[in-house]
Amino acid sequence: MVKVYLKKKITPRIAGGHPWIFRNEVDRVAGEVKAGDIVEVSYSDGKFAGRGYINPQSQILVRLLTRNRQEVIDEQFFHDRIARAWLYRQKLGYVENCRLVFGEADELPALVIDKFNDYFVLQTLSFGMECWKPAIVQALQSIFSPKGIYERNDVPVRELEGLKQQKGFLSAPFDTSIIINENGLKFHVDIENGQKTGYFLDQQDNRRAIQHIVKGADVLGAFTYTGTFEIHAAHYGAKSVLGLDISENAVAQANRNAALNGLDNICRFEAMNAFDVLKQWGKEGRQYDVVMLDPPAFTKSREQIQKAITGYKEINLRGMKLVKNGGFLVTSSCTNLVQPDLFLQTIEMAAKDARKKIRQVTFQAQASDHPIIWGVENTNYLKFLIVEVS
Amino acid sequence: MVKVYLKKKITPRIAGGHPWIFRNEVDRVAGEVKAGDIVEVSYSDGKFAGRGYINPQSQILVRLLTRNRQEVIDEQFFHDRIARAWLYRQKLGYVENCRLVFGEADELPALVIDKFNDYFVLQTLSFGMECWKPAIVQALQSIFSPKGIYERNDVPVRELEGLKQQKGFLSAPFDTSIIINENGLKFHVDIENGQKTGYFLDQQDNRRAIQHIVKGADVLGAFTYTGTFEIHAAHYGAKSVLGLDISENAVAQANRNAALNGLDNICRFEAMNAFDVLKQWGKEGRQYDVVMLDPPAFTKSREQIQKAITGYKEINLRGMKLVKNGGFLVTSSCTNLVQPDLFLQTIEMAAKDARKKIRQVTFQAQASDHPIIWGVENTNYLKFLIVEVS
Repeated sequence: MVKVYLKKKITPRIAGGHPWIFRNEVDRVAGEVKAGDIVEVSYSDGKFAGRGYINPQSQILVRLLTRNRQEVIDEQFFHDRIARAWLYRQKLGYVENCRLVFGEADELPALVIDKFNDYFVLQTLSFGMECWKPAIVQALQSIFSPKGIYERNDVPVRELEGLKQQKGFLSAPFDTSIIINENGLKFHVDIENGQKTGYFLDQQDNRRAIQHIVKGADVLGAFTYTGTFEIHAAHYGAKSVLGLDISENAVAQANRNAALNGLDNICRFEAMNAFDVLKQWGKEGRQYDVVMLDPPAFTKSREQIQKAITGYKEINLRGMKLVKNGGFLVTSSCTNLVQPDLFLQTIEMAAKDARKKIRQVTFQAQASDHPIIWGVENTNYLKFLIVEVS
Repeated sequence: MVKVYLKKKITPRIAGGHPWIFRNEVDRVAGEVKAGDIVEVSYSDGKFAGRGYINPQSQILVRLLTRNRQEVIDEQFFHDRIARAWLYRQKLGYVENCRLVFGEADELPALVIDKFNDYFVLQTLSFGMECWKPAIVQALQSIFSPKGIYERNDVPVRELEGLKQQKGFLSAPFDTSIIINENGLKFHVDIENGQKTGYFLDQQDNRRAIQHIVKGADVLGAFTYTGTFEIHAAHYGAKSVLGLDISENAVAQANRNAALNGLDNICRFEAMNAFDVLKQWGKEGRQYDVVMLDPPAFTKSREQIQKAITGYKEINLRGMKLVKNGGFLVTSSCTNLVQPDLFLQTIEMAAKDARKKIRQVTFQAQASDHPIIWGVENTNYLKFLIVEVS
C-alpha cells in the first residue's frame, strides 16, 4: 500500500480527529497512486495516522476512513460502518426517516445517505467514495432489503473531484414520488427532483420546537420550500399560516402537502420573493404572532461570509419587525461557515437595528441523526433559534 | 426622585440592556437616598437610562426595573410584570410547573418565583426587591389565587444586601410537602427543606432528551439529588438504574420518588461520594450504557473558575470511562461562570485524557421558562450535553 507522509505542522489537526488532508499538507507520497486508491498515512515522524482514499485531482488529497491499523478497507468495512450508523440512529429513536450516514460524522467522509422509510437516497461526493458505491449499495440491500435506492449525485462539488454530476436508480426502478411520516404528519418527497436528497431531514426535531408558540397564532413563514414548518404550525394549532417561497414549484408542493394533511384551510402558500415582501409588509405595519425564517445557505465560500452575514441580518431585521409585541421569531441558518456564535451576534445586531428587545427561548443545532464532531466544522452547520420579540 | 449619573465608560453595557449598575460605575448621586429607594438613572450626557432601586450597602448599587420613562414603579408595575411573565410561560406550554419569574430575564432583577402547581416559592435576593415583597405576594394572590406562597430566602447572597436569611409562609400556612407532575411522572417537592426552592425546574425539558437513549439500558446517575433524571430513565425504559448522591437525605427522597412512580424495582439509589466511586469503578472496569452527571455548581467566584474546570474535567473523564463503547454520557453544568464554549472545551479535554472519541448528540441550555438575555451572563447558566462515547 502506498504511503503518504504528512508535514509536521498538520499533526495536531489530524491527530485531533479531522479526516481531511489537503494537498499542501503532504510532505511526500512514496509510490505511484491513482484516484481512489487506498493509502496509508503517516505523521512526519513515521507513526501511523490512518488509512484513507486518495485523489490527486482534488484539493483534499486524502480523506481518512480509519485510524485503526487492524481495520481493512473492503466491502465488509462499509457494511460495518453503515450498520453502526444505523444502530446509532435507532438508539436515538429514529425509526422511519433519518440521515443514515452523515459523512465525516460517521467516519465515512463524502458519503451522505438519507433513509425515507423503505427508500434510500445517497450521495457519493468524492472520487474515493464513488469507487465504493457498489459496496455501499450492497450493504444497504443486505441490512435493509429496501424498496429502492437512488443516487442524487447531481451536485456541482463532484466536479472538483473529477466526477460528473448524475442521478438515477441504484436499484430496480421505483416511483420516486413517495410519502413519509414525520411528527404525525405526512409529506410528499420527490426523490428525483426535490432539493438535495429530496427533503430536509435536518430540521425534523426542530419542527417540534414550535409546538406551543404557534397555538392560536397568526404565523408567517418565509423560504418555506415545501411547507414543512408551516404545516407543522397548522397541525400544532395555528389560527392561520401564510408561507412564502420564490419557487412556484415549491409552493405547489407545499399546497399539496397541506392538502395531504387536511390543513389547506389553515395554510396558504404564495410564490413571492421573501426579501422584498417582508420589507414591504414591515412598512405597511403587518403583524404576526410568529414569524419563521428558514432560508437556504447564503454562501459556501469564505470570501462571501460578510455578505452572508449582511443577508442574515437584513432578513432577520425584516422578520422581527413583523412580529407582534411578545411574539416569536423562529430563525434558522444552514450556512456552515457562519458558526453558532457568529449567527447569534448577527441576530443581536438585527435586533438592535430593528429596535427590538429579544429573549432567547431555544437555541439548538440540527437533529441528532446529524451528529456533530467537534473540530470538524462542516458537521456543525445548522443553527435553529427561537427568540421572543418585544 | 433622586437622580443617579453614570460614568461615561459604562454607557454601552447599560444601553445594551444590562440592568446592574455597580458602585464604581456611578459618577454621582444627586440627593439623599436610603436602601430600597427608587431612583432615576441618567447616562453621563444626562439622557434617561431607566429607573430602578438603589442599595448603598450593595456592590450593585442600582438594579434597573424599567427603561420606559412612562412606567411608574408601584404595586401595579409588579402585578403587570408577573402577569407578563406568566403569559410568556403559558405561550411556551408550561401549565403546572415553571419558573414563573427568572430575575433579570423577566426585568425583575433579584426576584425568583417558582410555580409548583398551586404553590409558589419566592426568593427576593436584594434589598430593593425585598421592599416590594408585599406587592409581589399580592400580585400572586390576585393572578393565581394560590393554595400557598412560601419564601425561601435562606440564601447567603442576601447578606451582601444587608438582609437576613429567612424562610417561611407568605400566605396562610400549608403542608409544604407537595407532589408535582412532570413529563407524566410524579415527584415529591419539599418546599421548606429541599435545595434552593425545593426542586430543579431548570432541567425539566432536558429530562425528556434522554427518552430514547435509555431504552433497555443499564444507567448510572451521579449527583442524583432526589433522583429526577434517574426516575425519568426508568420511566423511559431503562433496564436498570443506579443513582448516587452523597446525601443520605437525598437518597431517601429519591427512593420515595421511585416508589411513588412504581419504579423502585428498576431504580436503586445509594449514598456515596460520586467523585471517589466513579474513579474506583472505572479501575474495576464497570461499564454502563448511559452515564448521567448532574453535579451542583462548582463555584460562584471568578477566582475559582480554574478549579471548577478541573473538577468538571475530572468528573467527566471518570464518567466517560464507565460508558460502554457506543453508549452515551449525559452531562450538565450549572456553574454560570463556566460559559457554554468553555464547558465544551472541558469535555473535549476530558475525552482526550480518557482516550475516548465523542460525538455531540444534543447540546442545549436550561428549560425555556428560564429565558436567556444575551449579554446578561447569569441568565445563561445551564449546559446540558449528550455525547456518544466510543
